[in-house]
Amino acid sequence: MPSSTIPRPVQTLIDELSRLPGIGPKTASRLTYFLLRQPLEQSKSLAEALVEMKERTRFCSICFNMTENDPCPVCSDEAREASVLCVLEEPLDVIAIEKTRVFKGRYHVLHGAISPVDDVGPDDLRIKELLNRLRDNKVREVIIATNPSYEGEATAMYLQKQIAPLGLKVTRLARGLPVGGDLEYADETTLARALEGRSEMS
Amino acid sequence: MPSSTIPRPVQTLIDELSRLPGIGPKTASRLTYFLLRQPLEQSKSLAEALVEMKERTRFCSICFNMTENDPCPVCSDEAREASVLCVLEEPLDVIAIEKTRVFKGRYHVLHGAISPVDDVGPDDLRIKELLNRLRDNKVREVIIATNPSYEGEATAMYLQKQIAPLGLKVTRLARGLPVGGDLEYADETTLARALEGRSEMS
Repeated sequence: MPSSTIPRPVQTLIDELSRLPGIGPKTASRLTYFLLRQPLEQSKSLAEALVEMKERTRFCSICFNMTENDPCPVCSDEAREASVLCVLEEPLDVIAIEKTRVFKGRYHVLHGAISPVDDVGPDDLRIKELLNRLRDNKVREVIIATNPSYEGEATAMYLQKQIAPLGLKVTRLARGLPVGGDLEYADETTLARALEGRSEMS
Repeated sequence: MPSSTIPRPVQTLIDELSRLPGIGPKTASRLTYFLLRQPLEQSKSLAEALVEMKERTRFCSICFNMTENDPCPVCSDEAREASVLCVLEEPLDVIAIEKTRVFKGRYHVLHGAISPVDDVGPDDLRIKELLNRLRDNKVREVIIATNPSYEGEATAMYLQKQIAPLGLKVTRLARGLPVGGDLEYADETTLARALEGRSEMS
């Protein structure tokens, strides 16, 4: 395409936006054109937020969740039970669990799941750090809350084997029908799991 | 949700990204988390591109396409025919037409289409500027290349009525374009055919 019709600064921004996951050249063009019509302040505040987020956010040295201060607010909160540890794949999963307001324990973020296809092995995750945490005898129960996907299941199986020798209680999030869901739209695997994990009504 | 689990700089970036069209809070979270794992340089170069695009790009005072220098490269290119003017809704449409390499004339960007539903009337578009350009007697043909949508058709009809008294040839892109589609997403061949098969409006 003749470069004359796309100003260089516009093409640069389209290229930068295209590097983000799930954003192709078409979406990047639309976003760029949108920003072109907005006041300079919007682009500036987005630019500042980008740099500030990177410069002021790090990973907690205990649980590896994202945080402004190390250790993070959950790890340094004495009111959170140190005896129950919830193991998750990503920081976004911590936010999801917190939203339930049901869990009062602490977290450990693996930063991924075991996936031979993507060349991700146990050493690429924060598993060594998890096992070190479990050896300090404060934890009684480990809730493995990896995703109910192939990779998440494989990671859960691997973790369970590693944690077993420590004699701790290892649990996994219940599988079943989503609340508010419709039975007829549930896939067979989910429905089978829901049947297997049925509980007595009291 | 307890603010403790989302660091403030992370929430700020999620909020800023959510202001972009087509990006909801979920996508904004994913993008933020992606950038958190990337080197600082990626966020910095995106931030610089954002500000530079706004500071160094303006609209051409003749055709209203986006440009680094005013007038834009097309308007200041003597090799481009001044006798044929292609009228478009958006700067992204100029890029789409240029890609066909069929059109050698000049452009006029309206910056939208007439849409009573969105409260966009003729005065909100660069129509006055278009009519002024047509009065200098250089233009012989006006190709109306607004989108083949309801708004684009309405704009084309309006323009045709306005231009008719000037005694110029007014053409419309051939109906090879899928109705209800968006010009920007048309493939190059279809768009080239539509240019070649343009018909005179009566």
